[in-house]
Amino acid sequence: MERIVFKPIGVIHSPFTEPKGTPIQPAASRGSRGTVEVFSEYAAGLKDVEGFSHIILIFFFHLIKKVSLIATPYLDTEKRGIFAIRGPGRPNPIGISTVKLIGRRDNILEIENVDMVDGTPLLDIKPYVPEFDLQQEFSLGWLEKKIEKLPRAKDDGRFAP
Amino acid sequence: MERIVFKPIGVIHSPFTEPKGTPIQPAASRGSRGTVEVFSEYAAGLKDVEGFSHIILIFFFHLIKKVSLIATPYLDTEKRGIFAIRGPGRPNPIGISTVKLIGRRDNILEIENVDMVDGTPLLDIKPYVPEFDLQQEFSLGWLEKKIEKLPRAKDDGRFAP
Repeated sequence: MERIVFKPIGVIHSPFTEPKGTPIQPAASRGSRGTVEVFSEYAAGLKDVEGFSHIILIFFFHLIKKVSLIATPYLDTEKRGIFAIRGPGRPNPIGISTVKLIGRRDNILEIENVDMVDGTPLLDIKPYVPEFDLQQEFSLGWLEKKIEKLPRAKDDGRFAP
Repeated sequence: MERIVFKPIGVIHSPFTEPKGTPIQPAASRGSRGTVEVFSEYAAGLKDVEGFSHIILIFFFHLIKKVSLIATPYLDTEKRGIFAIRGPGRPNPIGISTVKLIGRRDNILEIENVDMVDGTPLLDIKPYVPEFDLQQEFSLGWLEKKIEKLPRAKDDGRFAP
């Protein structure tokens, strides 16, 4: 299989207009409000989504110009493999973020803890289900000693200068 | 933006040769072993991944023939919006699963709790970090009363007959 072609199903609106200064994860963006605009042809797929308190947004890091297999993550000073970090400069620049779902008006979802740049193309929405996504015991590799920096961590523009 | 083009970075090998009978989530597949083969041109990106006990695999539901905005999920008997369920027949057929990482030999990752069909194209690997992905308080909509069925839930072939 050579190529996989997707189409945006919507767009994410956020208070962050450029990568620099954007929170690097929802946990670094508590309280930041945004909206998800699902294009009208896909709006029927939103039925029942409002019952979930959180949703997983799958999106395209559309501003990435450069892919690196090795990169320095926001929370570290050492270079790491791209598959051991969450930064956007990935071979397939796909992002996932679990955000709080505040409410729905037709095809518009109001969300909180937004960590995307305004205008980010949306690929998919999945309900957040801890029974599916949560692991009880885990280890965190290089992040083990860095994670306490997370709540204050902002993008410094290193992946999309 | 009209189209977003990705390329597989690898392939997932699993004991499940067809959708029918495949566990519907890693939580329904405890102990099932598989491997992730990352293509050699991307192998450098695996540096440091072995420090993490769990990884999030992002993959393409390549067997899906039919997309439906409304579908009956495996764990329910009522039709729900596709963005309120995890089933594969999505506008962009992207799957995410958190699996246990047993070990790495060069470009091969040995994994446990596999819920993909053998031969599934891999799009991305991210480290599992509960501080990023876990929510402390949540509600589960239609799934609230169905979730206890999860450990025994298998694909009955409804999305890829």
